[in-house]
Amino acid sequence: MEPFDFRTDSLSALFAPRSIAVVGASSSPQKIGGIPIDYARRFGFDGALYAVNPKAAQVQGLATAPTLRAIGEPVDLAILAVPAALVDEALDDAIAAGVKGVVLFSSGFAEIGAEGAAAQARLAQRARAGGVRLVGPNCLGLMNLRRNVYATFSPAPGAGLVQPGRIGLVSQSGAFGAYAYAMARERGVGLSTWATTGNEADVQLADCLAWLAEDPDTDVIMAYMEGCRDGPRLRAALALAQQRAKPVVMVKIGSTELGAQAAASHTAALAGDDAVYDAVFRRYGVLRARSLTQFFDLAHSAAVAGRPRDRAIGLFTLSGGVGALMADDAAAQGLDVPALSDAAQATLREWVPFAAPRNPVDITGQVTNDLSLMERSARLMLEDRGFGSWMGFLAAAGASDAFWPVLRDLVASLRAAYPDTLLAISTLLSPARRAELEAMRCLVFADPSDGIRTIAALAGLSAPTIDAPAAPHGEAIHLPAGGLSEPQALALLAEAGVPVVPHRVVHSAEAAADAAETLGGPVAVKIVSADIPHKSDAGGVALNLQGAAQARAAFERTRDSARAAQPDARIDGALVARMASGGVECIAGVHRDPVFGPVLMVGLGGIHVETLRDVALRVLPVSRDDALAMVRELRGFPILAGARGRAPADLEAIADALCALAGFALRAGDTLQSVEVNPLIARSRAEGGCVAVDALIVGREPSNLS
Amino acid sequence: MEPFDFRTDSLSALFAPRSIAVVGASSSPQKIGGIPIDYARRFGFDGALYAVNPKAAQVQGLATAPTLRAIGEPVDLAILAVPAALVDEALDDAIAAGVKGVVLFSSGFAEIGAEGAAAQARLAQRARAGGVRLVGPNCLGLMNLRRNVYATFSPAPGAGLVQPGRIGLVSQSGAFGAYAYAMARERGVGLSTWATTGNEADVQLADCLAWLAEDPDTDVIMAYMEGCRDGPRLRAALALAQQRAKPVVMVKIGSTELGAQAAASHTAALAGDDAVYDAVFRRYGVLRARSLTQFFDLAHSAAVAGRPRDRAIGLFTLSGGVGALMADDAAAQGLDVPALSDAAQATLREWVPFAAPRNPVDITGQVTNDLSLMERSARLMLEDRGFGSWMGFLAAAGASDAFWPVLRDLVASLRAAYPDTLLAISTLLSPARRAELEAMRCLVFADPSDGIRTIAALAGLSAPTIDAPAAPHGEAIHLPAGGLSEPQALALLAEAGVPVVPHRVVHSAEAAADAAETLGGPVAVKIVSADIPHKSDAGGVALNLQGAAQARAAFERTRDSARAAQPDARIDGALVARMASGGVECIAGVHRDPVFGPVLMVGLGGIHVETLRDVALRVLPVSRDDALAMVRELRGFPILAGARGRAPADLEAIADALCALAGFALRAGDTLQSVEVNPLIARSRAEGGCVAVDALIVGREPSNLS
Repeated sequence: MEPFDFRTDSLSALFAPRSIAVVGASSSPQKIGGIPIDYARRFGFDGALYAVNPKAAQVQGLATAPTLRAIGEPVDLAILAVPAALVDEALDDAIAAGVKGVVLFSSGFAEIGAEGAAAQARLAQRARAGGVRLVGPNCLGLMNLRRNVYATFSPAPGAGLVQPGRIGLVSQSGAFGAYAYAMARERGVGLSTWATTGNEADVQLADCLAWLAEDPDTDVIMAYMEGCRDGPRLRAALALAQQRAKPVVMVKIGSTELGAQAAASHTAALAGDDAVYDAVFRRYGVLRARSLTQFFDLAHSAAVAGRPRDRAIGLFTLSGGVGALMADDAAAQGLDVPALSDAAQATLREWVPFAAPRNPVDITGQVTNDLSLMERSARLMLEDRGFGSWMGFLAAAGASDAFWPVLRDLVASLRAAYPDTLLAISTLLSPARRAELEAMRCLVFADPSDGIRTIAALAGLSAPTIDAPAAPHGEAIHLPAGGLSEPQALALLAEAGVPVVPHRVVHSAEAAADAAETLGGPVAVKIVSADIPHKSDAGGVALNLQGAAQARAAFERTRDSARAAQPDARIDGALVARMASGGVECIAGVHRDPVFGPVLMVGLGGIHVETLRDVALRVLPVSRDDALAMVRELRGFPILAGARGRAPADLEAIADALCALAGFALRAGDTLQSVEVNPLIARSRAEGGCVAVDALIVGREPSNLS
Repeated sequence: MEPFDFRTDSLSALFAPRSIAVVGASSSPQKIGGIPIDYARRFGFDGALYAVNPKAAQVQGLATAPTLRAIGEPVDLAILAVPAALVDEALDDAIAAGVKGVVLFSSGFAEIGAEGAAAQARLAQRARAGGVRLVGPNCLGLMNLRRNVYATFSPAPGAGLVQPGRIGLVSQSGAFGAYAYAMARERGVGLSTWATTGNEADVQLADCLAWLAEDPDTDVIMAYMEGCRDGPRLRAALALAQQRAKPVVMVKIGSTELGAQAAASHTAALAGDDAVYDAVFRRYGVLRARSLTQFFDLAHSAAVAGRPRDRAIGLFTLSGGVGALMADDAAAQGLDVPALSDAAQATLREWVPFAAPRNPVDITGQVTNDLSLMERSARLMLEDRGFGSWMGFLAAAGASDAFWPVLRDLVASLRAAYPDTLLAISTLLSPARRAELEAMRCLVFADPSDGIRTIAALAGLSAPTIDAPAAPHGEAIHLPAGGLSEPQALALLAEAGVPVVPHRVVHSAEAAADAAETLGGPVAVKIVSADIPHKSDAGGVALNLQGAAQARAAFERTRDSARAAQPDARIDGALVARMASGGVECIAGVHRDPVFGPVLMVGLGGIHVETLRDVALRVLPVSRDDALAMVRELRGFPILAGARGRAPADLEAIADALCALAGFALRAGDTLQSVEVNPLIARSRAEGGCVAVDALIVGREPSNLS
């Protein structure tokens, strides 16, 4: 992907201003124009603070200026708390005064309909031309907790401050952002920065993500998204966060039809296909949270412990029952729970004859007679298998004052010996003791299942990767608008490296007979006609033909049937193709998502894709590993892996075909609407790997070109 | 099912004793024999308390008796805290003293191997003969929080008491039970009774469930299970709880292979097939919790709010984004979110022009200008659609002192007007305020997603139903041991009312030809031989035969192939059956679970059952509704419902066939090992409904009869 210029410097005036002016400043600390002044003073903003109000000489004891220009000092951030009708004038004033960033609380823009949207577009245009960054309109503003910047009229900080921390939070919704702020306070989660983007006339969620990715005070990013209008911008921001190794935890609404409907009635943003968002999130290692609890658990845990280096976990318990529960959770979450070596198991059995020594390791209540067992066992486990993560269930021991020093020393000693291992303890702890363990980068969970789920999610944070080059191999392909014929499609795909079924295009019954003989084996005969998309329905397909005579007859029969079904259709001969025997029917393709562009898809054919919707998606470009991972994540993957005694399908060949398909799509660029191979027959290596049997390519209509 | 005698009266001596004696009483309040005495006095047990210790005149200031007999007063409950070697003697003493119930802490029994198991069996036998109920051995004992009974040596109550409440908790594992006790304390969840059953020599988890089902102090039951040795007893206990309308929330370990392995290394109890446990839980409306958090959320919520009367929910929000999030959750959890009527929507739009009025109803931040909007909108929703549940997201409003009276009045007013509606509020509340709303049977959740998930789970609590009579229609069937031939199996199933493919058994090629003509259409010819289970592999099957000549030839060909493949096999002619065309291949059967007896199974055939393990199970007996529900819960159900433009399968016919199969299994009773119909072809009603094409019945070996 091209590097994207987020102009993060210009955003710094918004997020880290040295001076703030409030336009529409009110003398009431309860009013929208009074709250930011009250907050700035109460919470100790240490830069310059100005109040702009042409009708009052002072507000809240602060002398006012009639305009921003009249301040006569540089203003980094202007907060506009004026009615919609006065916004244009205030913005002009800000531009004239050389203000760098504007937070616009006012509502009455795109959210009220077409007229408001037009006003908003003019506003954005004016801000851009004037060189000022604009957050909002219709937003709750932003906070920088480390610099005591409270450019918001949300009552949330007024009810109690969140402690400064290393998590940045950005939300398209003000109400969601305010609730998340309150939850952070209740849960004792520290934040670096908080921002709401509202109608996003200028600054989008993606811009804030990019700024947080570069912010030295932020380690982890929490984001709430309703929709995205600028896919490349979002991808670039997520790529930046991934490059900076900053985990992004995302709540995105609209994962179901009902939710998408509710979201659409709420936001003017283009909703797009939720499955494609998921594909984007997967691409950039974004952790998608399905609830507020998960949102905070994941972000807090990522901030405390980071990413485990692999999916292997050592499970340690004082209770066999809870050990089994953790094993169930780990298996359900796809973590690896490898057994200890025989030698290590024997040692554990020596120490505790009734221990369960495999993994989970259950050293039983015996530990109460010999507290040193805990550290010895943990070290034995970590020496033996070098798990990326280790989690110990210590029952209610943490609540005991007598046991606490033992627990603290255990964690300190393991942390010193294994600096790169993700450590987690499940027990009941006071907030202060919990914080002490967390300071040693040890996660703490009351519920061991929460721990397992969180560690599994953190393991999904992929290592920073660089996007495969968007510039494709080979020359650009310029597709004509509309559907291509099947032979054209097969020829283009073959040229792009997709294995295609052996075939001939013929224009006479005799040529069909010759082709059948040349190709050998049973063949199919299909009419060629761009005018008849559903060839089977028109009787234009004959399958399993043996030899020249049957092929000859089939040529005439299919042509006659198709003519009878659609007398006006132009028929360009027939395709004679060798039947692909055996294998599993798959489907593969690339379609154009309105937000994110070309999306690669693979699925099992037939009912799997049509009824069970079992498909895997990736935004382009993809690596070969991505392609393989797509195949493996299908629910029906066991069918490809060799179900019912069948030889396993050649997965490498499928991955190669997917990469070739993706390469074709990139070369076709903006001229491609969609390409679909259906079926792609997946066979074993001995059977010849996979092969495209039918393909449909649709070129983009010029009117759809942006 | 037969009524089961749980002898709950005899258990009352254990759970609600008027007098307690501690055998092996210790003067140290930290020792296993001292803790129960310390607890009884510290926590105010108001019955008689005795200490038995032949070696000390008094312990902890309490005069001792040398034996239980020597006490000379009636003892309801004796706690035995003596080494394993002294247990026999102590038990004899208890029986001689007329003690009603014994809690046996001692370990060294079944958990240490065969010798311990034998000692335990003798113990159980002796207790039974002596008429004393026995909890343990190898258990942490029990508590009755309403009667200050602390017959346990767990340190958990010593670290702080759980408040008395209306939830009973029973656990097979002591460590799990103790941790759950501590979690209940941390979460402020009140308990009525707490029990651990350890090795279950006499009193099982099921007995405790039954006692709690009858206990007037208990409304909701929490249970932790590792395995069950007595399926009928567990079923009877769950049925009793269901009849008493007491929700049961269950943690059962071993839901994955890894977890089952860990569980097996921990417990001697028969693990059994986890999918069958799930079927049992579903049958009795048990809520299965997958984590400790869920365990407590479900139990506490069930105690506060009970069961909603349907799956319809009205969602109310002040934030469109959170509304969409709730809609996503509700859809994912299978709740119904019906739209309000046009009239109600119009009214809402009158009140708030930018409201989202469908459902979720988003009245936006506008509510801050007119607080009455909240109650008006909620009542409008409930009047309009009469939802079984209503949930409102009120952002951080609950944390505001100014708003709290409004919220409290809202809940009180809705509760008065809609006494039978499940009410839930999502906001941030102090524990005291939360308790105040809960006292009005209104659930409170900080995270709206938790609320939706919990309500959906509570909606899964089925209404109390009575088991269909276990006595089957029709005469008992006595199956011979071993596999029956296919014609025998088809005949038995046809007689039982399962629709079976038209067929004839023939013993000559000529008869095969005749049968093909009589049956008409394409036919299949299959050799009949009890000695050849895999007929296809032996070349003993010919399909799609047209007319007499092909059938005649096939008779000879299949017989010759089978003879060549297995020269010693006895061949009893051939089966000529009409081919069933069209439809979807299903599989149905009944197999015998070692714990729970006959289990009915249905699935889609082929890869669905073999590779994707997409089957639905029910323990017998089943109702016709159960049978229909089984079909609907298949992941592949859309395929039966008419995927790819096909006519939907006749679901009623499948349900009838399943009921007939179940009836057959009940009539065959203990003589049935398994019956499997594969394939059962599911066709549309017009195509003739469903039909069994092949069947295998295996009679139980006498050695397996218990």
